[in-house]
Amino acid sequence: MPQPPPPLASPLWRSLRAYQIFGANTEVGKTVFSTLLAKAAARRSPGAVAFLKPVSTGPDSEADDRHITRFAPDVSNKTLFQYKIPVSPHIAARLSNRTIPSNEALLFQTRDYAAQCANIGRKWLFVETAGGVHSPGPSGTTQADMYAPLRLPVVLVGDSRLGGISQTISAFESLRVRGYDVESVLLFKEDKYQNYEYLAEYFAEHHDVPVAGVIEPPERRSSLEEDVRVMSQYYEEQSQHKDTSGVISHLESRHEQRIDQLNSMATEALRNIWYPFTQQSLLSPKDINVIDSAHGDYFQTLTPSSATPSQSDSSSSSSSSNLLRASFDGSASWWTQGLGHANPKLTLAAAYAAGRYGHVMFASGIHRPAAELSSTLLKGMQNPRLTRVFFSDNGSTGIEVALKMGLRAAKLRYGWSAEEKLGVVGLKGSYHGDTIGAMDCSEPSGYNEKVEWYDGKGHWFDYPTVLCVDGKWRVNVPRELREALGEDADFGSLSDIFDVQGREQKGHHVRYEAFIRETLERLQKQGRRFGSVIVEPVVLGAGGMALVDPLFQRALVNVVRKSPDLFRKPNTSFESPSSPTAWTGLPIIFDEVFTGLYRLGRFSSSSFLETHADISVHAKLLTGGLVPLCTTLASENIFQTFSSQDKTDALLHGHSYTAHPVGCQVALESVKEMLKMDHGGSWNWAKSQGWTTTSGDSVASEQPAADVWSTWPRDLVEDLSRQTDRVAGIWALGSVLAIHLKDASGTGYFSDAAQSVRDGLIAGDAEGVNGPWNVHCRVLGNVLYLMAGQKTTEESVARIGSLLRERLKE
Amino acid sequence: MPQPPPPLASPLWRSLRAYQIFGANTEVGKTVFSTLLAKAAARRSPGAVAFLKPVSTGPDSEADDRHITRFAPDVSNKTLFQYKIPVSPHIAARLSNRTIPSNEALLFQTRDYAAQCANIGRKWLFVETAGGVHSPGPSGTTQADMYAPLRLPVVLVGDSRLGGISQTISAFESLRVRGYDVESVLLFKEDKYQNYEYLAEYFAEHHDVPVAGVIEPPERRSSLEEDVRVMSQYYEEQSQHKDTSGVISHLESRHEQRIDQLNSMATEALRNIWYPFTQQSLLSPKDINVIDSAHGDYFQTLTPSSATPSQSDSSSSSSSSNLLRASFDGSASWWTQGLGHANPKLTLAAAYAAGRYGHVMFASGIHRPAAELSSTLLKGMQNPRLTRVFFSDNGSTGIEVALKMGLRAAKLRYGWSAEEKLGVVGLKGSYHGDTIGAMDCSEPSGYNEKVEWYDGKGHWFDYPTVLCVDGKWRVNVPRELREALGEDADFGSLSDIFDVQGREQKGHHVRYEAFIRETLERLQKQGRRFGSVIVEPVVLGAGGMALVDPLFQRALVNVVRKSPDLFRKPNTSFESPSSPTAWTGLPIIFDEVFTGLYRLGRFSSSSFLETHADISVHAKLLTGGLVPLCTTLASENIFQTFSSQDKTDALLHGHSYTAHPVGCQVALESVKEMLKMDHGGSWNWAKSQGWTTTSGDSVASEQPAADVWSTWPRDLVEDLSRQTDRVAGIWALGSVLAIHLKDASGTGYFSDAAQSVRDGLIAGDAEGVNGPWNVHCRVLGNVLYLMAGQKTTEESVARIGSLLRERLKE
Repeated sequence: MPQPPPPLASPLWRSLRAYQIFGANTEVGKTVFSTLLAKAAARRSPGAVAFLKPVSTGPDSEADDRHITRFAPDVSNKTLFQYKIPVSPHIAARLSNRTIPSNEALLFQTRDYAAQCANIGRKWLFVETAGGVHSPGPSGTTQADMYAPLRLPVVLVGDSRLGGISQTISAFESLRVRGYDVESVLLFKEDKYQNYEYLAEYFAEHHDVPVAGVIEPPERRSSLEEDVRVMSQYYEEQSQHKDTSGVISHLESRHEQRIDQLNSMATEALRNIWYPFTQQSLLSPKDINVIDSAHGDYFQTLTPSSATPSQSDSSSSSSSSNLLRASFDGSASWWTQGLGHANPKLTLAAAYAAGRYGHVMFASGIHRPAAELSSTLLKGMQNPRLTRVFFSDNGSTGIEVALKMGLRAAKLRYGWSAEEKLGVVGLKGSYHGDTIGAMDCSEPSGYNEKVEWYDGKGHWFDYPTVLCVDGKWRVNVPRELREALGEDADFGSLSDIFDVQGREQKGHHVRYEAFIRETLERLQKQGRRFGSVIVEPVVLGAGGMALVDPLFQRALVNVVRKSPDLFRKPNTSFESPSSPTAWTGLPIIFDEVFTGLYRLGRFSSSSFLETHADISVHAKLLTGGLVPLCTTLASENIFQTFSSQDKTDALLHGHSYTAHPVGCQVALESVKEMLKMDHGGSWNWAKSQGWTTTSGDSVASEQPAADVWSTWPRDLVEDLSRQTDRVAGIWALGSVLAIHLKDASGTGYFSDAAQSVRDGLIAGDAEGVNGPWNVHCRVLGNVLYLMAGQKTTEESVARIGSLLRERLKE
Repeated sequence: MPQPPPPLASPLWRSLRAYQIFGANTEVGKTVFSTLLAKAAARRSPGAVAFLKPVSTGPDSEADDRHITRFAPDVSNKTLFQYKIPVSPHIAARLSNRTIPSNEALLFQTRDYAAQCANIGRKWLFVETAGGVHSPGPSGTTQADMYAPLRLPVVLVGDSRLGGISQTISAFESLRVRGYDVESVLLFKEDKYQNYEYLAEYFAEHHDVPVAGVIEPPERRSSLEEDVRVMSQYYEEQSQHKDTSGVISHLESRHEQRIDQLNSMATEALRNIWYPFTQQSLLSPKDINVIDSAHGDYFQTLTPSSATPSQSDSSSSSSSSNLLRASFDGSASWWTQGLGHANPKLTLAAAYAAGRYGHVMFASGIHRPAAELSSTLLKGMQNPRLTRVFFSDNGSTGIEVALKMGLRAAKLRYGWSAEEKLGVVGLKGSYHGDTIGAMDCSEPSGYNEKVEWYDGKGHWFDYPTVLCVDGKWRVNVPRELREALGEDADFGSLSDIFDVQGREQKGHHVRYEAFIRETLERLQKQGRRFGSVIVEPVVLGAGGMALVDPLFQRALVNVVRKSPDLFRKPNTSFESPSSPTAWTGLPIIFDEVFTGLYRLGRFSSSSFLETHADISVHAKLLTGGLVPLCTTLASENIFQTFSSQDKTDALLHGHSYTAHPVGCQVALESVKEMLKMDHGGSWNWAKSQGWTTTSGDSVASEQPAADVWSTWPRDLVEDLSRQTDRVAGIWALGSVLAIHLKDASGTGYFSDAAQSVRDGLIAGDAEGVNGPWNVHCRVLGNVLYLMAGQKTTEESVARIGSLLRERLKE
């Protein structure tokens, strides 16, 4: 397969002030202002000003580059794509009978021209767009969306005509909601409509953006010669005018400020910020990921100053490196990213809810976004038990809510007293959050033992895990469990391992269930009391990216549900529930915070276990990766536990921003979008990367085997697993790839085993033809993981796969 | 004082389909489309269609109402404000030499016209705006902002000219980010630019909004007669065209759908939602606050169907009530609201960050919004101890972080082992959140005793409170403490009570300090161990809106800081810190989640105590009331406790959306706005409501006495406190008003004492001349509280004050 092109680094050089000129409308004088700015800049930096028109429409004689050539002959200028018909570029391109340039081609060429300008010592570059901010580019994407990955700072040319106030403010807002920095608004001064006067005040008050007014150019003369003469004079005068040179000074200082801020942010951060999960004494400014912006799967981050200039750069004496590089967000920003950074759909969903409601009180209240999200989630889960949605802010609080629900239900049914503290049944290495209640659901470890009020309550099973080892898909049984559970077993494919019903027909579950039941019986005899089962279905994330044998988790649920005798209070009776959707044994809590909502390729990760939770917790991808929100879903039977005539029996838990409309609207948009992608076959390319091939002995089950798949190609996984000198095993499921490296020190979470591979990915490729790029990623002890989003492309995956192969070999 | 006018209820009647027509630009054919829609509607409902032009500019002969009269004679039509000069309304109004109508006048008159239409049985109303969406109205506010409180659903007339694609999309976005529902986009079909074709596809894909195209009207003829003839024919044909009637059908069904959704939401919510802090078995659908939207301080909520029609309504046989009413958000949406619901500045801040970053990984990362917010908060606190900002999602998680910080610091300095569990020193009735760690900071109570894993760890002092009782400002000493602290004492004003340094000079603190020290000595002798002090400065919120004597909290901090001997591990030595900003005795944690950031009138509520915390927690108002975010600020000395070469010594706490850019950008905007309001004297009107008057014996201190003030007038507070048959006492500070009602049952949080007053406020005024309105509020047991925002107007406060006086007398 040919190497895909590197991602795009946003152009930013200290020496080059590059600005993009957008118009509030068509025919508002963009080219006049470009010419003026270029001439004014050239007064300060003669011979060092460039002008680029990526797309131009209309006859040659009226082309903007001609205008520039005529009136600003010392300004270099270039047009990338010229169409002669004076219509929108998307129509002109279609009518031209030439190949329609892709958005990427346009961005890459614009970026290349900027790089060239920087390399030959230009100081200014003005990139002029066509028409209004949302006028479509050749591909049909509107320019505001198309150019967003470049995120050049903007000069907006306002509209001085009747209606122009509205046009200018709306155009500004369309740019603003896409994260552009509009540094200056320019428009003609005109007496009748006085748009300049209004807008100057408006932008100062609302946006702290300066507005500059310029007198209108002289009327068009009948002779070309005369026309050129009066226009030349106009430009000559206006480009020297203090208002125009003031704009240039302002743009210059904003450029310096942006770079200074980028350069000082790491130091400032280490002085002011207290980072989560970070030993800051081990960090220096160069370890801080300074993020200028993010788009799709990539951050734009400050390139470390130590980066060597690339070959092409160093050929010029006035060379300077691009200050930004594209960084693949390999941790999916702590596992939250789904629909890509800065997705305009999510932005507009957030803004709509903010504009309609702000936040509104939710206790005994209801609003559409919460109502629709609730029914969408309950339907999407396809779990007949779940009927209720409780809102909180993050996975940890959602787990605390789930615990309060589950423990109360068990306590009341079995008649435990307040003093008889109930523990949870879980798995070793689990992680449910950092608030004390959530921490107490995990067993003591190096991670939580230093936290003062931590007090783990429960029993945590060890379990078989799934890994691809030396090309083989294997269920690995921990040494201590082999007597009870048998030896490691190889399967033909991951799908075969996940065919839990097929494996049950072969009796694979029998030893699992016996072991679980015996353990629980022993604990009961020891007087241990339990109030809930809490597990992360299929993958234990923060605990070290362990892919659990799904059959083991299924066996755990099945044993618990069949065995109320193991959990009842001795010598007391209890009422067995009559409803088939009521919990039995113990309430089963599934923590899908990380694993749910398509992270592992399916709406609900519990579907891999082919069983249904009584309580299910969802966060992270819930909002597609934009804002915090968590939902704890519960069964009617659990809900009824809290129902009485006594107010104090209620679930007394709540957060100020419970079900905040912004989060709910964004979540609704995200969940609907992911459902649409799922049903529309958006991930067929990924599924066909070897994942549908099975060993052939898979038994038909509810979920077709083909639904066990990953964004990461099967051959990549199997190939990497063959590097047995370094790799202990590897797995991929959904958008997650986890490489377990061999770790001689055995220090688990605090191991450094994966660090060198990580360093290689972070160093990345400094010589990318579209600028430097790298892979930002996190490790969990000896595990290096990479996580894609739901919109990550095949090309991105291939590119990162290649780099990973390289770095693992080093 | 004359009664201020009631707030505005958004117009919504089942029988009247009211739509607002916005234009993507000026001269896009708004009036042609209005005429077409009116005619098409009139075909279905002859004689029942109305047209309103709130503001019209241009000569009479070209006025839109004339056009309507001519071509749709059966449509009633009205213009509210007509200006003859064809310029933007803000200029036309200024030049007219007539009184410029206020935004409120325009909204009220528009609403009145709609009400009139509903009352006389009209079925359709089209309200046409002037120019583009952001064209300024007469007052200068842009129309998109000005009309937002009405939130009429919108028909957007798109622009079919060159550049019109951009104009239409941007106009749509400006409406969308203000929470408008654009139900239909209409524009002329035109072959050259094919905007219709592009936009139909664009809106279907991105916004699920239908776009209808209509052929262009015939060219203007030279004779008026001929012109009228061809236009009449055009309207006749086009108003019957299936595309036009399709739009009418669509608008009709969307109207029905909106109302049906509003009517079914309460029932649906009680079926799907699990509410926080709510005994749902006691709720029926009528108790659910169905929120259609919110603006400023008011929700627009569904009027209960039981509401009696007002006098004016019932005079007509075809009467129907407005389905919505304005509800003052009297709990400030669980104490979060500051800058008003749907504040466009906050919306655009959120959207900008979403468009620039989405969410980006924060561990070892930095972005501008987090960097700027951190330095703004650290500076704003004016606390020389605080140097570090840790981000989390809500008050409860922020408190867990603070605890982990404080307890670790105490443990390490005093050499406690992991097994020697440390408690907190706090106040009775405190509340710090609902996660288990935060709950464990509060003493056992009816509130938390039923939560399974709750395990309170600490000692909680009883304390004197402040109340205005029968017109007197009093420090109330609980009976049990009178021997130690003395009797109740009356002061001339609240400012006198808050003059803590002045009172210290008089020796008021001596008994407080002695009592606190003796208590702590006794506890030490009992072997109790403490790791932090945690208090809510000045006001204990959720615990029952207790205003604590600030001198007592100050004494607590001072005693603890002077007395490391009370907290050290027996028979061990410890190193006293040398830095003056290091903690001594115990780390002092101030929970300012509710009290901080101007809720009580000052940036930091700790300033009332004239002391500085070592750790300070901020949420709620931090984002002005939009999205969840919390910051835990800490001193360098506390931070250094976690610094070592060992990764496991780090503060191992984090949330996926830590420092999410949307929250940080919104918080930055909010905090800066509140600082600006503070420094600009925005609350001078409130301060002058009797609060600056002191008894005259206040001793000069750092904070002038005048800074103890409330949004609620002092005479209201003192008057209400004289209703001694029902009112036990009352206080107001900042935007909070708390009325402690006499409670015979003594059931505290679960008391029903305040319920009847609350019911009276919720019933509100069904006969408001601008539609029904009420006050939505919450009670805490026997305490009824009302909370304003930072932008609440004097008029709003006066209006609610009046209603409150009335309801308390009933």
